[in-house]
Amino acid sequence: MSAAPSPPTIRDAVAATRQKVGDDPARAVVRLRTDARMGDGTRVDLRAGAFEFAADEPVSVGGTGTAPNPVQMALAALGSCQAITYRYWAEELGLRLDGVTVTVEANFDTGAFFGFPGSGTPAPSAVRCSVTLEGPEPAARYEELAAAVDEHCPVLDLFTRAVPVERAVTTA
Amino acid sequence: MSAAPSPPTIRDAVAATRQKVGDDPARAVVRLRTDARMGDGTRVDLRAGAFEFAADEPVSVGGTGTAPNPVQMALAALGSCQAITYRYWAEELGLRLDGVTVTVEANFDTGAFFGFPGSGTPAPSAVRCSVTLEGPEPAARYEELAAAVDEHCPVLDLFTRAVPVERAVTTA
Repeated sequence: MSAAPSPPTIRDAVAATRQKVGDDPARAVVRLRTDARMGDGTRVDLRAGAFEFAADEPVSVGGTGTAPNPVQMALAALGSCQAITYRYWAEELGLRLDGVTVTVEANFDTGAFFGFPGSGTPAPSAVRCSVTLEGPEPAARYEELAAAVDEHCPVLDLFTRAVPVERAVTTA
Repeated sequence: MSAAPSPPTIRDAVAATRQKVGDDPARAVVRLRTDARMGDGTRVDLRAGAFEFAADEPVSVGGTGTAPNPVQMALAALGSCQAITYRYWAEELGLRLDGVTVTVEANFDTGAFFGFPGSGTPAPSAVRCSVTLEGPEPAARYEELAAAVDEHCPVLDLFTRAVPVERAVTTA
């Protein structure tokens, strides 16, 4: 009886990617896709690859209250991307990192969504990302880690950069 | 025996918010929060209000493959926010809208995440948002709707605007 193969470590995976990409950075680019379908009220059924999940709005604003709302989901994308990027880059820099928690908070202006005059932006504002790291390394090494994460975290970059969106609408 | 109260319609909810906000736009601002905790491998357990969900990376890149990854989650936030904003603004503009589906696609540059020289941005790029609307209204009315949605959709605004993030790191 042979043991099940271990999953690749993050460093192994990075090494494999590095090998595959070689001298052609374009090979590193993957196309991601998610599908959203409006259900009852404000419930939206979502699919990304093999995963099915949902977004919704609270009953208090006319939703059915069955799932996080899209802005909460965007904040969760930031928090989880930060956490995973800390994990990856700790391995890359050879740091021990025993735990990561990330709290993301933001203001959401319902008035901007509803088109009230005098409102702020529809986008969340005053975004604050509070990261707590656990581990035995000296503080300076975790500062080095944080700098690497700030430079490479995809969803942090999505928040802080203006990313163009091509939008097409068709009527069925 | 009395019937259960109906949930408020979106228009009722908007009317209630309009009443509450009155002449003070600051009352329209709510603070949202999500918490992320690193689990095994790249699994991140997430909480937003009463909702618990997760992000992860595929086994092929060293994750445990149990949930969508953070960039997929960000794309899902955009797709669901578009869908809900179409629903709200169709009511606001008095349009009948029988169905909304939204496909969001984007390039993700793994090389940028891993810090390979010659890579693009860590943020997703070439973002394409394809919206299909079903309903009996003339095309011009759905174009009017799409313009209103582009102006008010929170996560579309988050993608296309540079949103500052205040980041604090503490070591436990």
